[in-house]
Order: sequence, then structure tokens, then C-alpha cells
Amino acid sequence: MTSSQAANALAYGNEQGNIALMDYLVKRINQEQHLNLSAENLMITAGSTNALDMIARLYTQAGDAVIVEAPSYVDSLHVLRDHGVKLYAVPMDDEGMLPDELEALLKDLASKQIKPRLLYTIPNFHNPTGITASEARRTAIVKLARQYDLMIVEDDVYRDLAFEANIPPSYFALAGGENVIQIGSVSKTIAPGLRVGWIVACAEIVQRCVDCGTTQMGGGASPLSAQIVVEFCRQGDWDTHLEHIRNLYQTRRDTMLAALDLYMPPDVTWTQPAGGFFVWLTLPENKYAAVVKRQASERGVLVASGEGFFVNPADGQHHLRLTYSFASLDDIETAVRVLAEVVSA
Amino acid sequence: MTSSQAANALAYGNEQGNIALMDYLVKRINQEQHLNLSAENLMITAGSTNALDMIARLYTQAGDAVIVEAPSYVDSLHVLRDHGVKLYAVPMDDEGMLPDELEALLKDLASKQIKPRLLYTIPNFHNPTGITASEARRTAIVKLARQYDLMIVEDDVYRDLAFEANIPPSYFALAGGENVIQIGSVSKTIAPGLRVGWIVACAEIVQRCVDCGTTQMGGGASPLSAQIVVEFCRQGDWDTHLEHIRNLYQTRRDTMLAALDLYMPPDVTWTQPAGGFFVWLTLPENKYAAVVKRQASERGVLVASGEGFFVNPADGQHHLRLTYSFASLDDIETAVRVLAEVVSA
Repeated sequence: MTSSQAANALAYGNEQGNIALMDYLVKRINQEQHLNLSAENLMITAGSTNALDMIARLYTQAGDAVIVEAPSYVDSLHVLRDHGVKLYAVPMDDEGMLPDELEALLKDLASKQIKPRLLYTIPNFHNPTGITASEARRTAIVKLARQYDLMIVEDDVYRDLAFEANIPPSYFALAGGENVIQIGSVSKTIAPGLRVGWIVACAEIVQRCVDCGTTQMGGGASPLSAQIVVEFCRQGDWDTHLEHIRNLYQTRRDTMLAALDLYMPPDVTWTQPAGGFFVWLTLPENKYAAVVKRQASERGVLVASGEGFFVNPADGQHHLRLTYSFASLDDIETAVRVLAEVVSA
Repeated sequence: MTSSQAANALAYGNEQGNIALMDYLVKRINQEQHLNLSAENLMITAGSTNALDMIARLYTQAGDAVIVEAPSYVDSLHVLRDHGVKLYAVPMDDEGMLPDELEALLKDLASKQIKPRLLYTIPNFHNPTGITASEARRTAIVKLARQYDLMIVEDDVYRDLAFEANIPPSYFALAGGENVIQIGSVSKTIAPGLRVGWIVACAEIVQRCVDCGTTQMGGGASPLSAQIVVEFCRQGDWDTHLEHIRNLYQTRRDTMLAALDLYMPPDVTWTQPAGGFFVWLTLPENKYAAVVKRQASERGVLVASGEGFFVNPADGQHHLRLTYSFASLDDIETAVRVLAEVVSA
């Protein structure tokens, strides 16, 4: 960092974000997603949290309808609920959100004169299920969103953790950038304590976020951290690090899936994540996730019970989220064995 | 920073904030404000912006009434408006907000079944006026707030920039910590790019902010910056730096006030700030701030026209905010002379 970069990093930041980082990200995202973004299409945020909170603040009011996946990320539901919106959920299968269910919901809402403001979705290596939405699903959902003038919020914070080369085109790409806000972050791949994320959107939406009260008052997001991130990225360290952690997480996923195959009773099913951190377990109807979670915890194995991930918590009572990202291979194997014993008991 | 502190600073932060910084601030604030806070009364935020936005998000809904000073900080009004609240303004004089006017407003709102949610005030070296509320005013306002069950948001980001030794007791101290949220920040005295501020409040309010969606999703505020700040503070560098900048800003204020005395026509009046950054100028009724601002700008002198600082912009059309914090003594003298020429023209 030169002394003038350091001085800038300590001042109120450029409102749209660190310019060098914006420039780096625009080029990188254009290449990865086959887009044609310019500087006006990207804004740096203090992580994906700041992005989602700002979108909810500027594009919803208390009482508005917001559509999410069932299940969805518990903390995102929490951020949205803090804005007083009413959440409606669309079920998923192994290919992502079900367009027929989305269409039925949109028709039902329209019949009640309710216009939903946002559709919040995690397309790649979804939290909590690990599922990646197929291209066919994305295309169908973009079509519905266009038909119903529904803004898609594409929370894509896991996309850099793909274990295979190809992931389907983004919602932003499929929609030609229209009425989609894509959220990205370095929290999952560099460091969450830096509080650096971004949104990609049409110029009008980016400008509205730049012009909002918090940006005008506090300046651009995380100026010091953004300068650290851009230096790390431009030196190529991010790509080297990504290759390392993708391999690491892939091996951990493989170990978890193999252990699940080996130990779990036949009436338990689970997802096959192609990236990210999570496997989603479905228990038989006579087994309750909260009980399994408690019993596993007594034996030192931590899992998340499904209830919090659903707008209707009861929908999660036979589901568990398993996280393989932070455990050693031995620990993963042991933990799945213990969990299988608890489930089988 | 030890390697374990560095690792913590890069991880999701403790939700209430960096523990060492919280500990440092609690002790410092207890000493300065004669309080008896414990750890449960303070939370680190990403600057005062994050604090005010979070308070508005958790304690108001669109359509709610919020009371502010006339004038108030333009960007705070913007942050509040983004939450869809309805702003009501209480006039000030040189001792701060007028309690009689506040009482009249509260009575009027009560007669309409409107319960205001927050009273937002900047008690010390107010932005934009530079005024410090007197103790008598604060006491009267605390009494009214208690009577009407009104939460006071005390934005105290300039308090470390006092040119004289004593400032009146804080609203938080006068209210015994009840129904007051005090906001602090290092942005005005260390560096805004760090995005480090805090709130002081009763344990219940702090816990609500810790438990909210953005904190749960993003973790504690600015973990890396908070670790940098606490090391700076604990080494005594903040106090050394404060002494330096207080002297610097005091000299600049003195220069500005002397130049105003020397050059301004007799029908122009201004405030006498005892700290902070700002002097507030009142023009005669036949002179318009927007015109003066434009003409001064053409001669290289930048001032803020009053309109944006008022809920009712027309109330600001004869006011200008002058900032002495970033200019050399020579530039201040010249700028005031030019401004006086423009006003007199």
C-alpha cells in the first residue's frame, strides 16, 4: 500500500466503493459470468449482510411481501424480518426452487392484490441445502419474475467455491441484468472480518444505493479492508487461495458423503453439493431433528436443526444441516458415524 | 497485534464487538461521564451510521413519528427518512432544543393519538450549528421524554472535540441510563475509514441490537478495524492525538470567529461553538443562503446552504454552515473575508 492509498483507506471512502477493487471485480465478474458490466453496475458493501439489509431497506416497507426459498438461510430470513416484511416460501427439490410452486404463489398473491417486492434466492451451493439451481429452473424463474415484475435478489456468496468447472449462468446473466441484484462477498473465501462484499445491478439500482442515507453518511463500505482486499486479489493471491480451499472443501465433502453412505440407515436421505459448505439431511417422519441435534451435541457433534431455515418452522423438523467446511477428515468421518448412531437409536 | 489477535480480527467478530475495545471504552466512558456501565451496556458498531440505521430499523416502522432538532444533521435525516418515518422538528436557540416547543409538539401528537418513537439529538457541538445544549435544557428534555415514554437517541460523535474542560452531563447520565441510546464514534478523532463506533444503552437495548438479523448474519462490527483502534487507544495514542487536534481545531475556530467579527456586516449573526467543526451563520431575511453559497463557490469558498438541515427546507434558506476543521488559518481568514464580501454585495 502506498502512503496515499493508506491515507485514502483511512478517510471516508468513495461512496460507491474502493475504485481499484470495483475495477478488479467488474473485470473478473465480466469474465466469469460472460457479462458486460461497467463501473456503474457494481457497488462495494460491508459484506453480503450490508447488501441484503440495504436492499430490504430501500426496496421494501413493513408489511410488503417477500418471497424466499423453503428452506433458506436463517440469518437472511432474520435480516428480512427485521424490516417487517411478510415472508412467503417456495419449496425446492434437488434442482432448486420449483417454478410451478412459484407461479402458483404469484397467482395467489395477485388474486389478493398483493405485489411481492423481492424474490430472495441462493442459486449456488445453497445454504442450508447445498443445492445448485439448474439452468432450466433459473430460466423458468426469470421468465416468471419478468411476467410479474418481481425483483430477484441473487445471493451468490458461495459461487467461488465450485468443485466442478461449470456452474449454470447467473440469474443476472439470464435476465440480461434487468431487475436482478446479485450479491457477492469475500467472507467465504478470504476473511469475513474484512466486511467486504458487493452488489451487481443495473446503474439505476446501484445509484439508488449510493445515494441512500447510510452511504451518504458513512461513506463507501470498509475503505481500509477494501484496499487490503484489492492488493491481495491483484497479486493473484485470491486465485491461489481459492484453488487451495476448493480442493480442501471438496475432499471434506467427499469424506462426508462417503461416511453418510457408509453409516446412515436407509430411510435417511441427503443432498449432493457440488460446492460450498453444506449437506442437507432428511430424516424419516418418526425422527425429529431437534432431538437428534440435542443427542448428537451431547456426544460432541454439532449440527443445525432445520426449523430456523423455514418461514414455517415445522417444515424443518425432520431436516438437519451438516457443515463439512471446518472439520478434519477424521473428525468428519467420526461425526457422521456418531450422528448415524443417534439417528438409528 | 499477536497472531491470535490477527486471526480473530479476520474472523466473524464477537457479535457485541471486539471485547478488548468494549472493555477500554466502558472504562473510559464511565470515567468521563461518571457512569457505572458494565460490558452489557456497550456494543461496537460500524461507525455512528450503522448505529443510527440499526436503531431506526429496530425501533421504528414506516409511518412512525420521529422527532429531530431544527436544524439537524442532513445525513441523519436521510438515514431516518430511508426507514419511511415521519420527521417532526423542534426549534433550537443557542442553548439547544427548546423544551417548551418540544412539549407543545408532544401534546399535539398525543392529541392525535400519535406516539413518537425516537427523539434524535446532537447535544455537543451540534451539526450543523456548533451549539452545545445546556444542562438545564437537557434536564427539562429528559423529564419530558420520561413523561411521554420517548426514547432519546443522543448522537455524541463530537464530544471528544471539546475546547474547554467541561461539557454538561450527557442525556444518558441525566436519565440514569433509562430509555436513552448514546452513539459514539472514532470517525471524527481517529479515522472515518475504520468504520468503528459504538452505542451505550441499557442491557435490553444492547441485547436487542446484538440479536438482530444484521449482527447475527455479519457478526460483530468491523473486527479488523476494532483491533487496530484498541491497540491505538491502549497505547495512549488516542489521548495524545486528541490533545493535538483539539488545539488545532480551537485555533481554527478562534481564527474563524475573529474573521467573522472583523468582516461580516452587522446584520449577520453566528454561533460560538465550544468544540467540534461548525459555525452556523444567520443571514438577514433579504439574503438567501443558496445564492450566497453559489456566489462564494464561484470564488473558491465552500459553505453548506441551510435547507438540507431542516425537515422543512424553507426554514434553512437564510442559514449557512461554515466548517473550520480542514482549512489552514490563512485560508479561513481569506474565506471569511470573501464570504463577507458576497453577503454584503
